[in-house]
Amino acid sequence: MTCMVPGSFDPVTTGHMDIITRAARLYEDVIVTVLHNMEKKTAFSMQERRAMIERATQSLGNVRVDNFSGLLVDYAHSHNVRVIVKGLRRAVDFEYEYQLAAANRHLDSSIETVLLMTDTRYNYLSSTLVRDLAAHGGDITGLVPDCIKEAVISGLAKGASAI
Amino acid sequence: MTCMVPGSFDPVTTGHMDIITRAARLYEDVIVTVLHNMEKKTAFSMQERRAMIERATQSLGNVRVDNFSGLLVDYAHSHNVRVIVKGLRRAVDFEYEYQLAAANRHLDSSIETVLLMTDTRYNYLSSTLVRDLAAHGGDITGLVPDCIKEAVISGLAKGASAI
Amino acid sequence: MTCMVPGSFDPVTTGHMDIITRAARLYEDVIVTVLHNMEKKTAFSMQERRAMIERATQSLGNVRVDNFSGLLVDYAHSHNVRVIVKGLRRAVDFEYEYQLAAANRHLDSSIETVLLMTDTRYNYLSSTLVRDLAAHGGDITGLVPDCIKEAVISGLAKGASAI
Amino acid sequence: MTCMVPGSFDPVTTGHMDIITRAARLYEDVIVTVLHNMEKKTAFSMQERRAMIERATQSLGNVRVDNFSGLLVDYAHSHNVRVIVKGLRRAVDFEYEYQLAAANRHLDSSIETVLLMTDTRYNYLSSTLVRDLAAHGGDITGLVPDCIKEAVISGLAKGASAI
Amino acid sequence: MTCMVPGSFDPVTTGHMDIITRAARLYEDVIVTVLHNMEKKTAFSMQERRAMIERATQSLGNVRVDNFSGLLVDYAHSHNVRVIVKGLRRAVDFEYEYQLAAANRHLDSSIETVLLMTDTRYNYLSSTLVRDLAAHGGDITGLVPDCIKEAVISGLAKGASAI
Amino acid sequence: MTCMVPGSFDPVTTGHMDIITRAARLYEDVIVTVLHNMEKKTAFSMQERRAMIERATQSLGNVRVDNFSGLLVDYAHSHNVRVIVKGLRRAVDFEYEYQLAAANRHLDSSIETVLLMTDTRYNYLSSTLVRDLAAHGGDITGLVPDCIKEAVISGLAKGASAI
Repeated sequence: MTCMVPGSFDPVTTGHMDIITRAARLYEDVIVTVLHNMEKKTAFSMQERRAMIERATQSLGNVRVDNFSGLLVDYAHSHNVRVIVKGLRRAVDFEYEYQLAAANRHLDSSIETVLLMTDTRYNYLSSTLVRDLAAHGGDITGLVPDCIKEAVISGLAKGASAI
Repeated sequence: MTCMVPGSFDPVTTGHMDIITRAARLYEDVIVTVLHNMEKKTAFSMQERRAMIERATQSLGNVRVDNFSGLLVDYAHSHNVRVIVKGLRRAVDFEYEYQLAAANRHLDSSIETVLLMTDTRYNYLSSTLVRDLAAHGGDITGLVPDCIKEAVISGLAKGASAI
Repeated sequence: MTCMVPGSFDPVTTGHMDIITRAARLYEDVIVTVLHNMEKKTAFSMQERRAMIERATQSLGNVRVDNFSGLLVDYAHSHNVRVIVKGLRRAVDFEYEYQLAAANRHLDSSIETVLLMTDTRYNYLSSTLVRDLAAHGGDITGLVPDCIKEAVISGLAKGASAI
Repeated sequence: MTCMVPGSFDPVTTGHMDIITRAARLYEDVIVTVLHNMEKKTAFSMQERRAMIERATQSLGNVRVDNFSGLLVDYAHSHNVRVIVKGLRRAVDFEYEYQLAAANRHLDSSIETVLLMTDTRYNYLSSTLVRDLAAHGGDITGLVPDCIKEAVISGLAKGASAI
Repeated sequence: MTCMVPGSFDPVTTGHMDIITRAARLYEDVIVTVLHNMEKKTAFSMQERRAMIERATQSLGNVRVDNFSGLLVDYAHSHNVRVIVKGLRRAVDFEYEYQLAAANRHLDSSIETVLLMTDTRYNYLSSTLVRDLAAHGGDITGLVPDCIKEAVISGLAKGASAI
Repeated sequence: MTCMVPGSFDPVTTGHMDIITRAARLYEDVIVTVLHNMEKKTAFSMQERRAMIERATQSLGNVRVDNFSGLLVDYAHSHNVRVIVKGLRRAVDFEYEYQLAAANRHLDSSIETVLLMTDTRYNYLSSTLVRDLAAHGGDITGLVPDCIKEAVISGLAKGASAI
């Protein structure tokens, strides 16, 4: 079975990697689908975000990266994916994911949202936090995969706007 | 007794209609009061939002539509309304309504906020979700009253920005 | 319109009184309905609980006290009551009331649950807390209506088991 | 891949069935594992609970029923099951499942907890509610599978204590 | 021991004062540190926000005001402060403070976040609410310290944008 | 300044130790006060619970252990303690601590409750979980201090009831 792990990944964090790795153990194929949201400015370009995930997941043989815009269920439908994997960190995440899952079910009830619990060590982590810390010179070691740490720091320094 | 059901209604959803209909069974007169917020851009104009509610509520004889700006309690006071009806969908709504109700109580303790539970079928629904789905071609059948569905879709297509 | 305010009231607290008083301003008749739960031991007998509410509400002309067992909607139905009033203190209350309101709607959709916000000053108060404090000699002034304070203290001392 | 759906199922509800049915679409084999908890009295015996699930799931070819006591991860380990499926209804469920999932991960990190969202229509439902309603003569149509409705009602009438 | 009470204080509210006063009873020195956030426009200038806190805290001998930008832990480190005091009003605050405290712990585990409960009377209050009410002519008596009430009202009238 | 860290500690966990250790860095003296609750049966006797905490804290020079029954504020008052330290793990804890802190404030406003965040690694841990796992032969390494692990296991085996 194939699953997709959608998100903005601006940038990918250790918490995202925790979920992607769990998904890669549970499903034959994992597509990390990076959202291209025309209305929301990101700190990193689509190309940069994809490149960072590709580097971070290269040891996971059954994971590939793609991007999408529009409705998640349309992507799922056209790529024959029936499972959307999301990570749950805290109760506030649940409220948000509940709304999304119900909306996606309304649009296409054959597609299922599957929620995995993020490891307790990472359950405060978010891309926003990483950008915030890096923009102010804070140490982000352990918050993003080691192999992309320098890319995150230099990318934000080059003018990627934090927040 | 008269009550008011305030909101942005951008646009009115099936969830809003659920609350308005319950209010119409509980109170002699219901004023659906559409907020004119100068600082926040809406997808639909005040005129469009009012027209959509009017069409959706026309079978409810004791419901009328009005708009207001400024403080809700000032509107209530000048229109002799003592009850504000709000819908509760989920725990996060509660936190928000708690703050609003306490603030309104501070301003005028003679005005009471009355909370009704949205039907479980609609408790993930919001105007933001409707705009988001419609803007990307998703089916909004059942999420807004049938009689305004086309107006919502064509309104958003005509350049109303969906967030 | 008549409403009912159900509860165990073991004993009635200042927080309960806040909700009963608000209900008495919003509805023509208010029936405080004391739950007789055969499976749950209470600290005060039904007679004591009713007597305390009666004393505390005697200045409210449109409030009377009754008791019930079984399903709330059955009581409502046989007494021609269409509105159940409950107090909301905090987010955890909401989760509990959500379940009850949905269950009651399943049983009889003509009966509506109306939620009022407890004053912020009382939103930590519960009958359990009052019993706990009184049982250990803590001052409960302000936590229960003044006119029943002694009855609560002496009732618990006489062997009413706290918790 | 095989998954297990653990629970007390005292009795199985329409909400449980929603999760079991989703699991049966996502996994090759589904084992509904009924918890035998020596410290907690149930309304229905293990035999009754299993029989009701078996009747309710008989049209689902890849679902079977088993029982277990002790630690869930021990059962999973000895039956070669790597996925535990749980249903999430509301934010309070999340807090509980978070603790369980973290504890199970501590015991055996190779076993993954997968959370599915219960349909919004059933997200107030619980076995406790069903027992409560049935014990007081409330209509439980739609709250449990039709094929076990009579068994639930007569079982509780025969002296099964409804909390 | 010295503690810091960080915030935007745009403007300082009675709820902030509640926390600052508690901190002044618990710690020898209290530094109210006003955040200078380059990316976020405030209604009041840094000078105005500091002046208002100074006026409101002048009877508290062990409280002084400072401002900072960048990471809180860097300020704490360079000023030899090991304790960050934050106020908790409601469950949603907790989720936010949890993330901040965990992030600060990641950056410098020798600095501890200490959370105090805001008095129940003020637990709906926020600077945003104060600005909102004042901008629309609502009475903010009791929501901000009396000595700065006029400054808040005239400051917002002079063009400080509410919201 | 002296603080107290109250609890049932049935038995003390690694999460409790995290809070006690933080308290020992922030306060000159720390009294771990073990609650003697006559109405609630514990798995370990008062003597056993105290002995386990004493062993686990013996390297912390400024920590001592005591027990109390009745109201926490009475103990605090008679021992000249003005600060109660509690650990916060998750949003549900907050709701509970909010009620306790408000009740204690009602009884004695000179005593302050100070909340510390439990390390994210331990935020699913509780004494109930430890007892549950140990009772079923689950590995509790890392969940309780190493020096009391055997005492916990053999204590529960000897007939201490694990919920």
